[in-house]
Amino acid sequence: MTYGHIGHVSPQRMRFAKPLPLRSGASLADYELVYETYGQLNERRDNAVLVCHALNASHHLAGSYAGEEKSEGWWDNLIGPGKPLDTDKFFVIGINNLGSCFGSTGPMHINPATGQIYGADFPVVTVQDWVDAQALLLDQLGITQLAAVLGGSLGGMQALDWSLRYPDRMRHCIAIATAPALSAQNIAFNEVARRAIITDPDFHGGHFYAHGVVPKRGLRVARMIGHITYLSDDVMEQKFGRQMRAADLGYSTQDIEFEIESYLRYQGDKFSDYFDANTYLLITRALDYFDPAREHGGDLSRTFASARCKFLLASFTTDWRFSPARSREVVKALLDNKLDVSYAEIDAPHGHDAFLLEDPRYHGLLRAYFQRIAKEQSQGAAA
Amino acid sequence: MTYGHIGHVSPQRMRFAKPLPLRSGASLADYELVYETYGQLNERRDNAVLVCHALNASHHLAGSYAGEEKSEGWWDNLIGPGKPLDTDKFFVIGINNLGSCFGSTGPMHINPATGQIYGADFPVVTVQDWVDAQALLLDQLGITQLAAVLGGSLGGMQALDWSLRYPDRMRHCIAIATAPALSAQNIAFNEVARRAIITDPDFHGGHFYAHGVVPKRGLRVARMIGHITYLSDDVMEQKFGRQMRAADLGYSTQDIEFEIESYLRYQGDKFSDYFDANTYLLITRALDYFDPAREHGGDLSRTFASARCKFLLASFTTDWRFSPARSREVVKALLDNKLDVSYAEIDAPHGHDAFLLEDPRYHGLLRAYFQRIAKEQSQGAAA
Repeated sequence: MTYGHIGHVSPQRMRFAKPLPLRSGASLADYELVYETYGQLNERRDNAVLVCHALNASHHLAGSYAGEEKSEGWWDNLIGPGKPLDTDKFFVIGINNLGSCFGSTGPMHINPATGQIYGADFPVVTVQDWVDAQALLLDQLGITQLAAVLGGSLGGMQALDWSLRYPDRMRHCIAIATAPALSAQNIAFNEVARRAIITDPDFHGGHFYAHGVVPKRGLRVARMIGHITYLSDDVMEQKFGRQMRAADLGYSTQDIEFEIESYLRYQGDKFSDYFDANTYLLITRALDYFDPAREHGGDLSRTFASARCKFLLASFTTDWRFSPARSREVVKALLDNKLDVSYAEIDAPHGHDAFLLEDPRYHGLLRAYFQRIAKEQSQGAAA
Repeated sequence: MTYGHIGHVSPQRMRFAKPLPLRSGASLADYELVYETYGQLNERRDNAVLVCHALNASHHLAGSYAGEEKSEGWWDNLIGPGKPLDTDKFFVIGINNLGSCFGSTGPMHINPATGQIYGADFPVVTVQDWVDAQALLLDQLGITQLAAVLGGSLGGMQALDWSLRYPDRMRHCIAIATAPALSAQNIAFNEVARRAIITDPDFHGGHFYAHGVVPKRGLRVARMIGHITYLSDDVMEQKFGRQMRAADLGYSTQDIEFEIESYLRYQGDKFSDYFDANTYLLITRALDYFDPAREHGGDLSRTFASARCKFLLASFTTDWRFSPARSREVVKALLDNKLDVSYAEIDAPHGHDAFLLEDPRYHGLLRAYFQRIAKEQSQGAAA
């Protein structure tokens, strides 16, 4: 088996003139989606896999950009020739979600209705809105049925939503390290991050672009909070513990004393240099709102009555953001509906971040599952 | 058994002219400690219990202030006539720690060396410094040996430090919901809270008093983060879950949608009205620095070789800030030194906050332990 790098890739862009009706009642007119594809769509057009992205990611799943160092896609360890999601067999699609700051229409763009930057006026988008927009893009690509929709974390929520609302357009749903809805604690962390951004004087009610400033302080704090919740307590202890910068205590409340402080400040600084504050608010709110059972009186089993595809769910033992218990809620609802479900709880030390890392058991699981999908396809083709 | 309220109490104040040498190498000249006492010191002067306070608390343990509504002390459910820490039997002392904003000398006071408010120039204080100051106050009260030192959380750290450095001045150490040192995750949460405060433009490098402002945004975010870590995931889910303010989604990133958001904002606002930003930095740093095993090559068993008193430790199953595993580390070190240790892991749902609440098993445990101390005293008196 060859493990090849996917090589240089280029994003593509698709414009939609027809307004997209949003869950909020608003609609988005004249928008663009940025996307990338890897591998070849086969003649039967049945080997396409849509990969949905989470908070701090984009359409750039794999490969790198010519002339840009360290520009590998965020799931490059998973996607490529001979990799678990094998681009020699599958046509893989990454789509940047609406409201993002990585290319698709979002708060940094011009509102055609006013000629001004959207900023805080960009409409609130939901997981359902994103999924609807993804489906429209797939229409344009001539893909009527996906082999699979795959996503981790917030991406997993999109995969679940696909299975509920487009049951005939997919054969498999692969949802990793996700949840059927945020818990109160999850929402609480989002809210603290949002307050840090919104109360930053440089936020200017979300119209900071016109002031030539960026609410970096708020973004830094938001990202630091995020990082704590992505890592397990254990891995943080192993990686940083109580390691200090210097041999002796500095007796300072403002200087860096512990390595974990240095790490968090670095992550916060880096993030505040490239991420858009309004996008952060929009995406965390989409997370908060996701709750497909809400329309079914909170009954998750009734919610999944509309699903038809086969499912793979996976969770990580040390993930305290979206713990295995949350995945098991979904598994139970799927089993209540007598659906075909595979489920793995992977004993990985890395917390929520594990879904992005190259753990052999985790990647072995995905490899085997995609081999099953490929086998079903070739059987379908032979039939 | 009568469960009486302790009635109206008044704080007292003691001035110390002799400079206190601090761990940082600095010293604090001409400082004051505010304290309260409840019950009567007996003739043998052997019934005194020192209660050490945690981050957001003070010397005001029990009783209330005349003419002030809702002014009950923070541990009023535990301390009083007929209560688990029975003021008919014990002479209970609460001392406000140096650097606090509740009366003892702190960053809001005038630095006698400059005639200006200390602000960020207030020296960094450690758990050891606090304990040393407490011991000096007890000297003045004529108390050479305490029946017990009691504390929860950061207060528990002070109780442990007492047992290590003043082994002959106490007969019992009662340390609740505490840890032998913060974990990387604990430090991480402190650091995010500190960054929120320090990067608030109204912080002015810690000299905001001169500008007539208060870094309220930072304090709010700090307190919101704190609250998330004080509560268990379960109790937050039971109390707030995904309850919304309105029947329909408001599709807003900035308005309150979920009850948990409303709760956190309220707690943050309240805190920012009364807590001092420099005090918050000082106290979280004292937490970070506490690590008595550091001077013993990280060996907690060797660290406790100096201890002589009897110990009660208690932890709460749902406390993820200072989990039972952290208390067990201390228990193991005490047992390695063949010390007299009682330890209880209490199955309470409330997370770290449980140490402040009136759980019958928890209060029953403390009641029984204080009865044992009282019995030992009367046997000592009869001997």
